[in-house]
Amino acid sequence: MFELSRESSVPLVDQICERITQLVRQGQLPTGTRLPSIRKLARLIGASAFTVVDAYDRLVARGLIESRAGRGFFVAQRRIAAPLIAVEAMPESANESVALATLCMAHCSDIVPAGSGFLPENWLLEAGSAGVLTRLRRGRRQPWLPCPPQGLPQLREQIAARLVQHGIAAGAGNIVTTYGASQAFDLLARILFTPGDAVLVEDPGYFVLFEQLRAHHVRLIPVPRRADGPDLEALEAACRAHRPRAFFTQTLLHNPSGSSADAAHCHRILSLAEQFGFAVVEDDVYGDLYEGAAVRLAQIDGLRQVIYVGSYSKLIGPALRVGYVAADVQLIAQLLERKVLSVLSGSTLLESFVSEVLDGGRYKRHVEHTRARLARMRRDARAALESAGIEFEPAEGAGLFLWGRVPDGAPVDELVRHALTRRILLARGALFSSAGNCGQWLRFNVTHSASPPLVEFLRESLPRAA
Amino acid sequence: MFELSRESSVPLVDQICERITQLVRQGQLPTGTRLPSIRKLARLIGASAFTVVDAYDRLVARGLIESRAGRGFFVAQRRIAAPLIAVEAMPESANESVALATLCMAHCSDIVPAGSGFLPENWLLEAGSAGVLTRLRRGRRQPWLPCPPQGLPQLREQIAARLVQHGIAAGAGNIVTTYGASQAFDLLARILFTPGDAVLVEDPGYFVLFEQLRAHHVRLIPVPRRADGPDLEALEAACRAHRPRAFFTQTLLHNPSGSSADAAHCHRILSLAEQFGFAVVEDDVYGDLYEGAAVRLAQIDGLRQVIYVGSYSKLIGPALRVGYVAADVQLIAQLLERKVLSVLSGSTLLESFVSEVLDGGRYKRHVEHTRARLARMRRDARAALESAGIEFEPAEGAGLFLWGRVPDGAPVDELVRHALTRRILLARGALFSSAGNCGQWLRFNVTHSASPPLVEFLRESLPRAA
Repeated sequence: MFELSRESSVPLVDQICERITQLVRQGQLPTGTRLPSIRKLARLIGASAFTVVDAYDRLVARGLIESRAGRGFFVAQRRIAAPLIAVEAMPESANESVALATLCMAHCSDIVPAGSGFLPENWLLEAGSAGVLTRLRRGRRQPWLPCPPQGLPQLREQIAARLVQHGIAAGAGNIVTTYGASQAFDLLARILFTPGDAVLVEDPGYFVLFEQLRAHHVRLIPVPRRADGPDLEALEAACRAHRPRAFFTQTLLHNPSGSSADAAHCHRILSLAEQFGFAVVEDDVYGDLYEGAAVRLAQIDGLRQVIYVGSYSKLIGPALRVGYVAADVQLIAQLLERKVLSVLSGSTLLESFVSEVLDGGRYKRHVEHTRARLARMRRDARAALESAGIEFEPAEGAGLFLWGRVPDGAPVDELVRHALTRRILLARGALFSSAGNCGQWLRFNVTHSASPPLVEFLRESLPRAA
Repeated sequence: MFELSRESSVPLVDQICERITQLVRQGQLPTGTRLPSIRKLARLIGASAFTVVDAYDRLVARGLIESRAGRGFFVAQRRIAAPLIAVEAMPESANESVALATLCMAHCSDIVPAGSGFLPENWLLEAGSAGVLTRLRRGRRQPWLPCPPQGLPQLREQIAARLVQHGIAAGAGNIVTTYGASQAFDLLARILFTPGDAVLVEDPGYFVLFEQLRAHHVRLIPVPRRADGPDLEALEAACRAHRPRAFFTQTLLHNPSGSSADAAHCHRILSLAEQFGFAVVEDDVYGDLYEGAAVRLAQIDGLRQVIYVGSYSKLIGPALRVGYVAADVQLIAQLLERKVLSVLSGSTLLESFVSEVLDGGRYKRHVEHTRARLARMRRDARAALESAGIEFEPAEGAGLFLWGRVPDGAPVDELVRHALTRRILLARGALFSSAGNCGQWLRFNVTHSASPPLVEFLRESLPRAA
């Protein structure tokens, strides 16, 4: 009845649990059956009593067996019928942006995530992360205390020190941590906007942001994004026409185009912000991947009109969800209050983890390594996609994304749907345009886009390249 | 210059970092000074080169030193002046509820947190948590993958299994995880209410919830809470007068009174909900601490009108921030979309941690131990506070909180302010009443309320007990 393997990498405790679960599920151990005593089972399988106690404890916790005082362990009765509603019956999200974000985070190892916004898991700090856990476990830090709502002081000091290295004058008091950049955008929208406000966004731009802003019932005003930054004439015209409350922009490694704005654009954006009195939200979640001397809006402006948003989810790992806002202290005080009323506080375990990663040389090396690797894969992915018929602008761009055009005449919606049946996840360009443009475009994650099944699929589906 | 101690529990790497930081701060190593080479420092202090490399890497990451290719390590120039704004200059929150929540989460070891809502740190799974990290590190689970926005499937299955043990028919599809119960309330408010809606809350009740709801511009309608549950006549009258959209209630171990509703109250609440068409949000964050056979609203109702909110932050640790909503799948789909647009997803590391704790017998034992310990301390705290002049209702209550009355004539606001100057944190009863009642009351955390400085302070400050 109990065939356990000592050579297996599966711990004995787990083997016992799995075996008993199986026997119960198959009906060989019906409800009410008494299980062997701890001592007896231990002898039977040649394990220690401690191992058996651990296994029985787990099975009790799972509700599969129950202990009756002085009488031993018994297969538990299932108290109520199995729930009628299966996970699969979950209604699909009507919102395509939410659906795409959800697909990007699903654990489907058999999918080619060409439309995903994440680095591959094995690129992240996976290998190093176990070491970070060990250090956290042994360290003098207290990952179990409640987290001050503004964020762990030590982490906020590290973030401020990094901003100072970028030439941005910020202290720990100018920082509030968030669950990723997403929460930063949500908290900012709650503070800055009232329904009907005009808000400028880049077109194309980050699709989840658009939905977040729409949920606050603001009017999205698209500003075309060029290879050297937002289109300045269109920006000025939009300011005159709409008197916006804010402009959300990515100075470096713009999602989806991979372009970076130059210093002249930064200066002009800030002049317009001053003239028309709007806030500039600088989304810098990819900035660490920028090669060379970068100019950021926050550096020129000094956190007066600029609200700077950063995140470690992209580079340390999406499992962590640690981002932050750097801003004027008055705004930080408002954000803090709003954060307390939304989630009470951050997680000390997550913030200690990021703090520990930043503290070592690990993060710097990881960023440099990732940057070089992305540049290499970017060239390969672009060549492979071009060979399959995808068209690109001449400007190279950099970072995680390639923004490519499907030749006219190929119906993109059908292509995306068809791709999914072949286990290939594509990101429709239309999602990245709040104005409903970009219908012929797709966003590609460079780390997955030289993949043979993708290239083959595109080659089959697209009209022959010239 | 380098006096390091091999006997110290502080790792050598950290000792080197601290010593160099000190020397730079004190001006003994001015900007531009070349540091000893790695080999030289290693020899000097009798450490391995690896240790010195690790220390230098950390100091570079902190911006204190910089490496110049081929020339070694130098004390870095501080590129811009120190930020003008100190953390201390942070404007204090005008909102007293937010201020109290923030104080409860501050890391002040010299404060008596008699008003806090948390278990003491050393009661939590502190000792066991290192073990959980080890298991996570070695385990077959992947705490580094992105987290599916609805929550890790394995955790949702465990939660559903626990709900089934409580007689609540729920499957993994009925669960969405949240960053603590706080995020659950925020997401629910966003979905269920439009400004001006009437929402029923218990009076007294959870003070942060009131502020969360007020932020959504709803009208709070207080329903007096009695020792056997909400006042049913007042509840019915409020339903007739205000046609509420929802009622937020704690069936078990109500905060702050420690009372639990009986089955008759549960039935009546559900009848009224059906009659008047409102949702019942059952906040069960303390329910696991209830001794004996509990009746929950969700168990009677079967997640038709009841939206059930649970959390592991209270019992596994506030550092983790893992809570959940169990509800009808239609509502779960709405919550999920709202969650994606607020925070994108939960954290795989946090959810794997909780899943690992629940999987062992650890959680069950911890809960039983905590329950017994709380009951003991409750008796002691109540006796000590009574001896100092605090008055209690005859009903005993249970759980983490004691709800006590300051004798008439003692000005409570002044008492609370004065206590804070003596490093004692008290929670003003008025915060727990949306109707502005309870001015003479205080909420005490039983684990901190037999503390001699608190009892002495109250004895000095209150009129003599009869």
